Amino acid sequence: MKQERILMAHGSGGLMSQRLIEEIFKSAWDNEIMAPMLDGAVFEIPAGRLAMSTDSFVITPLFFPGGDIGKLSVCGTVNDLVACGAHPMYLSTAFIIEEGFPLADLRRIAGSMAATAKETGIKLITGDTKVVEKGSADGIFINTTGIGVIKEGIDLRPSRIVPGDLIIVTGYIGDHGLSILAQREGLRFSTPAVSDCAPLYQLTALTDKYQQAIKCMRDPTRGGLATVLNEIAQQAGAGINITEAAVPVSEVVKGASDMLGMDPLYMANEGKMVLFVSAEASHDIMADLKKIPLTSHASIIGEVTSTATGMVLIETELGARRILGMLEGEHVPRIC
Amino acid sequence: MKQERILMAHGSGGLMSQRLIEEIFKSAWDNEIMAPMLDGAVFEIPAGRLAMSTDSFVITPLFFPGGDIGKLSVCGTVNDLVACGAHPMYLSTAFIIEEGFPLADLRRIAGSMAATAKETGIKLITGDTKVVEKGSADGIFINTTGIGVIKEGIDLRPSRIVPGDLIIVTGYIGDHGLSILAQREGLRFSTPAVSDCAPLYQLTALTDKYQQAIKCMRDPTRGGLATVLNEIAQQAGAGINITEAAVPVSEVVKGASDMLGMDPLYMANEGKMVLFVSAEASHDIMADLKKIPLTSHASIIGEVTSTATGMVLIETELGARRILGMLEGEHVPRIC
Repeated sequence: MKQERILMAHGSGGLMSQRLIEEIFKSAWDNEIMAPMLDGAVFEIPAGRLAMSTDSFVITPLFFPGGDIGKLSVCGTVNDLVACGAHPMYLSTAFIIEEGFPLADLRRIAGSMAATAKETGIKLITGDTKVVEKGSADGIFINTTGIGVIKEGIDLRPSRIVPGDLIIVTGYIGDHGLSILAQREGLRFSTPAVSDCAPLYQLTALTDKYQQAIKCMRDPTRGGLATVLNEIAQQAGAGINITEAAVPVSEVVKGASDMLGMDPLYMANEGKMVLFVSAEASHDIMADLKKIPLTSHASIIGEVTSTATGMVLIETELGARRILGMLEGEHVPRIC
Repeated sequence: MKQERILMAHGSGGLMSQRLIEEIFKSAWDNEIMAPMLDGAVFEIPAGRLAMSTDSFVITPLFFPGGDIGKLSVCGTVNDLVACGAHPMYLSTAFIIEEGFPLADLRRIAGSMAATAKETGIKLITGDTKVVEKGSADGIFINTTGIGVIKEGIDLRPSRIVPGDLIIVTGYIGDHGLSILAQREGLRFSTPAVSDCAPLYQLTALTDKYQQAIKCMRDPTRGGLATVLNEIAQQAGAGINITEAAVPVSEVVKGASDMLGMDPLYMANEGKMVLFVSAEASHDIMADLKKIPLTSHASIIGEVTSTATGMVLIETELGARRILGMLEGEHVPRIC
């Protein structure tokens, strides 16, 4: 049987576009707000603060151990909203699809987005589909833009960070980056490298509970943990000291990155969060993090200082102390 | 001097990404909410209804008479919000850029977005930049997602349409489609074909003023006027009769489409709106539309009937009556 594929007419805005939306998207994520053939979706919101975050996903390969571009596109924006202290509520989705793309793959991606959204409690409410000629895009690119509600009193801006605050990372780092690289280059390890791609919506309960004690959160995606720590050090006007031995790295990532000459601190994550918390509450926060399966390997990796502001210093496993810079140049492209 | 170009490292999430954002985007659209290096933007909103709309823009060529992909990407989402009855407030922007893309073009596009946003009063508050290898995308693709506030009592869903309502189009149709086609194919006409690309934010004053009388609005972009009328006939469960002679078509579009064998009713517009209004208020609404420069060529093109529901009938200039279907197949690809 001939495989069904995306045609240019699926992006015409006419009959074929309507059919594609009805058959693939509408059935995958039907909900009461979704407006598949209108110009936008309408929803009620209480007075207060909202967070808005956008990300386009251009990852290759589209399907990888631990996820696919659909799951990733929901997790990525959900995690950005969570990092703003917001409860993820609504998501728009926009597809740019290359002519000839298999409809079966599109169906699988749409299903994966629907499942992740359902798990998270976020609603996919409006969308867009464009088709470009064969050779004008690489398979499929997905944009998601999310809206979340921030409860009264929550503020996770880096300016709240003060010297003495402790820094937590919620689990093993580098898994997503290694998984994509391994898949792309055909590398095989004794333990397979699986992406950590996951929606961290359960952290909203913690930001609500520890309003005063959780100062700032950020998800270390592109550029990895090292880049995020540098950004925050700059934005907070503070110094950061971390201890390499305290950073959770799995055996497979440790082994593979030694072999490949890569540093897990610069490798991408898609299911991790970095938290800046007050020292007094750190014990309670760590205890709560360890109860959530996705953050059960959380570790205190360092602290905020008043010296060397805007910089990150690392105490290496060999006992040396050096500056840990931002990612310069390119690490692994198209990781998300 | 060597032309500066986008490198893969500009999409790394590291130092080069930070510099690109600082140099091109931050300077073009600085505002108090924008959070260039955070995961999202935070803003206050009153209680009530919001509209959310998303669109990705893949138009080729990137620069055309009457606009460019930057202006278009702001107008497209602004007009969708307006069609929802919303006051456009905030916009996210996400770029997928091909390696090697000239930085000068990116600067021009960012400036164009900033200027259109300023004119409209919408704020560009959060963004994302991804870079893909040369050959994996065609120059640049832009997603914009917008949020608008809908005032109490406004409802522009097609279900409000009843037989007897009149149908207004706010000006000449087909200009955008012809302009892109002409630019792409190197066609020259005695009067140049200029896109109608424009932000129709001034129509929000009318939807506020005529809450009861304006039943539904839609912007006839991809698929053209014919497709939008069919969508609304289906969604409203009503019949639509239009008179071809009443549809405003400029001389250049009329001449060129005759020559090329194309029908302006299926050609894309980027600065037009279709309004469904009560017959009693139609005179006042038309008078108000004619006062706004962008809608000064508004025309009543037909009416809603209780017969032939879900269908659009057209009385042609020759006096014949026929069914006007949705766009089937593909018209002009990558028009937006």
